[in-house]
Amino acid sequence: MANSQVIKVALLGAGNVGSQVARILTEEAPMLSERVGTEVELIGIAVRDTSAKRHYEVDSSLYTTDADALIDAADVVIELTGGIEPARTRILRALTAGKSVVSGNKALLAKHGSELQAAATKSGAQLSYEAAVAGAIPILRPLRDSLAGDTVTRVLGIMNGTTNYILDQMDTTGAQFEDALAEAQRLGYAEADPTADVEGYDAASKAAIVANLAFHSEFTIDDVHCEGITSITADDVAAAATDGYVIKLLAICERDGEGVNIRVNPTLVAREHPLASVHDAYNAVFVQAENAGELMFYGPGAGGAPTASAVLGDFVAIARRLVLGGSGVPEYTYAQLAATPMNRVVSRYSVGIEVDDKLGVLANITRIFAEHGVSIQTIRQTKSKNASGEGVSSIRIVTHRASDENLRKTMAVIDSLDTVREITSVIRVEGE
Amino acid sequence: MANSQVIKVALLGAGNVGSQVARILTEEAPMLSERVGTEVELIGIAVRDTSAKRHYEVDSSLYTTDADALIDAADVVIELTGGIEPARTRILRALTAGKSVVSGNKALLAKHGSELQAAATKSGAQLSYEAAVAGAIPILRPLRDSLAGDTVTRVLGIMNGTTNYILDQMDTTGAQFEDALAEAQRLGYAEADPTADVEGYDAASKAAIVANLAFHSEFTIDDVHCEGITSITADDVAAAATDGYVIKLLAICERDGEGVNIRVNPTLVAREHPLASVHDAYNAVFVQAENAGELMFYGPGAGGAPTASAVLGDFVAIARRLVLGGSGVPEYTYAQLAATPMNRVVSRYSVGIEVDDKLGVLANITRIFAEHGVSIQTIRQTKSKNASGEGVSSIRIVTHRASDENLRKTMAVIDSLDTVREITSVIRVEGE
Repeated sequence: MANSQVIKVALLGAGNVGSQVARILTEEAPMLSERVGTEVELIGIAVRDTSAKRHYEVDSSLYTTDADALIDAADVVIELTGGIEPARTRILRALTAGKSVVSGNKALLAKHGSELQAAATKSGAQLSYEAAVAGAIPILRPLRDSLAGDTVTRVLGIMNGTTNYILDQMDTTGAQFEDALAEAQRLGYAEADPTADVEGYDAASKAAIVANLAFHSEFTIDDVHCEGITSITADDVAAAATDGYVIKLLAICERDGEGVNIRVNPTLVAREHPLASVHDAYNAVFVQAENAGELMFYGPGAGGAPTASAVLGDFVAIARRLVLGGSGVPEYTYAQLAATPMNRVVSRYSVGIEVDDKLGVLANITRIFAEHGVSIQTIRQTKSKNASGEGVSSIRIVTHRASDENLRKTMAVIDSLDTVREITSVIRVEGE
Repeated sequence: MANSQVIKVALLGAGNVGSQVARILTEEAPMLSERVGTEVELIGIAVRDTSAKRHYEVDSSLYTTDADALIDAADVVIELTGGIEPARTRILRALTAGKSVVSGNKALLAKHGSELQAAATKSGAQLSYEAAVAGAIPILRPLRDSLAGDTVTRVLGIMNGTTNYILDQMDTTGAQFEDALAEAQRLGYAEADPTADVEGYDAASKAAIVANLAFHSEFTIDDVHCEGITSITADDVAAAATDGYVIKLLAICERDGEGVNIRVNPTLVAREHPLASVHDAYNAVFVQAENAGELMFYGPGAGGAPTASAVLGDFVAIARRLVLGGSGVPEYTYAQLAATPMNRVVSRYSVGIEVDDKLGVLANITRIFAEHGVSIQTIRQTKSKNASGEGVSSIRIVTHRASDENLRKTMAVIDSLDTVREITSVIRVEGE
């Protein structure tokens, strides 16, 4: 592409992030053109309904319902529609024609990322999606490029702002999950149907994308073990606080022998750990690498303008490459590591058990842990009377590292005891 | 470059970082070759004395004193010697011949960065130097690429691990500067001659490099106003703690009207600010951008292996571009902003004054502040007797935002008062 040419941009989608991208492409066109090295022009915005009200109004002649024609006329396509179809077909249409694509579509990338990357590599087009993980926080480029000469061993991320807001509220105000969720909905942090956030699916998509880049292998969302936060109670949060922990929903990708363990689960994080002080709807990603040591990246994980910043960073990098010539840098999945089955995953656990307040109950429980090879680090027992006036003991046990399988077997046996009233919680402990 | 070719690497320097780079290039050659897409070979290491003991021993035939011949035989040059010459001449030799260069030489880049970048742009070679700022923390690539579609308004960085260690020790143990420095020297965090660290020169080089990339303009170390930490006392640290602050040596680059203010100075940072909890010798860089909002990057700011990780990240990116074809991405200094003169810089101040304990002294001082247009936010007065039994008042004033010029004039008048015994400290307050 010669310097005298214009780079024509097609935008798919005009939602919260799309409107901000349209605004910046319009208002900051001179700045973007300076940085790219040639003129940049937004040639159209594909939407389902051209007459709908938008967050930011651009020249109404830019709106079109014919996404394919728009893609065919463009040099670079920015996809911000979300969902699998028609986004997948449209991105493949662009990449196959050698047009580079910026996407923020985490669900699509976590499901069909390698198909899209293969299409890009084949045509020499570029595919970038920094906005798909942790909003404005640069995390994919650092993993892909900055740590390209290092070996990542573990990534621990707070990658969903909604659940972090809810858990932070529960920690700071003592609220129950339902009340904190309602507050998050009132403030616009959580959607009317909060399932994707609170069940951990949103974070799981991001974990799959991060694991690909961190471990140079192909993983999809189907490789991610996922537990949400709906069962976390105010009691769990209070018990964690007593022991010096805070509960966070972490996306965890860690090298594990010859495989990689990828999961999203509520986690006890020690108060001194940098992730413990990530409040409100902020995101943060903690990366451990063999030579670099421990790095952390922190910032707003969502929102129209921050996510648009990530989209436009990718766009400028892509457009400059178009001006300079040379193909996009393909992802290198040479390592081909496999996802570790969850039952082999090893971590520490914090377990809450409610039992009859009788002699010998605690001894019996600790014996069952020992028989299953699960070593106990600390036990705390609190005695009280229940509503019927019966003596009840709340036992909180924190284990040393144990396999998921051994822990589950232990808990199954304990659950079957007559003296055990309820297993109130089983939460992993991370961050040592 | 065809895929069947070997990428030949010349390493200049075999010190702490150089040895680690040599180790990784040797031990991790298969991994690096997979990531680059072709074979990578370390062809030699230029040193002053081939027989010296090294941190990591490689094949001794790799050592040479003939740096020029080594450069001429290489595809990519990694410069880790430090200092201005002969590093500058050698890097120019490589870039002029179209050979890409990775450097960690902050002093050189802060002084002659634009000359080196111009040589790279002219020949289409690439010049990368992530290791020059904040060790393993990816900060230059995020500023240059991830935020390429955004407008950075301010960067606040803890970019010198030695001074952060000293100030952190003073804050947590109450130590005096001299004792904390001695401890840092004992632990190897500070050199026998600590001048470059404690006077802020090291951080000033990094500030100049960061300002270039953040504001797309050409700045050198001569544009950086620099104050070190040698005058910070245990009393200053204790007074800061009383008011809810911690003292950090910050490198600050901020957009200021039509210019950019670049400075390194001891700074009061509120305890709640993310930079306040950066302990020991860790570094962190806090970035504010118009759309992204507030981002923070945190990690080890020095050390052989972490810095080598940054060097090799740059190397892999450069080598992949060689394999794929297309020239390096030049820096874009289109904005050509000027450095703001220090006297026009506006910030808040914390001022310590020791005065005679007499009626009217405080009223007189507050009047002088007002006359110079410096608005006071808080005043705290502590009365005591000195060794001679005379009544002494310690006054601590925190101001609202004021220009450096007005503040200096205010303090000059106050210093001339008969009732003023000493101005004990003048420290800027940042981070709101």
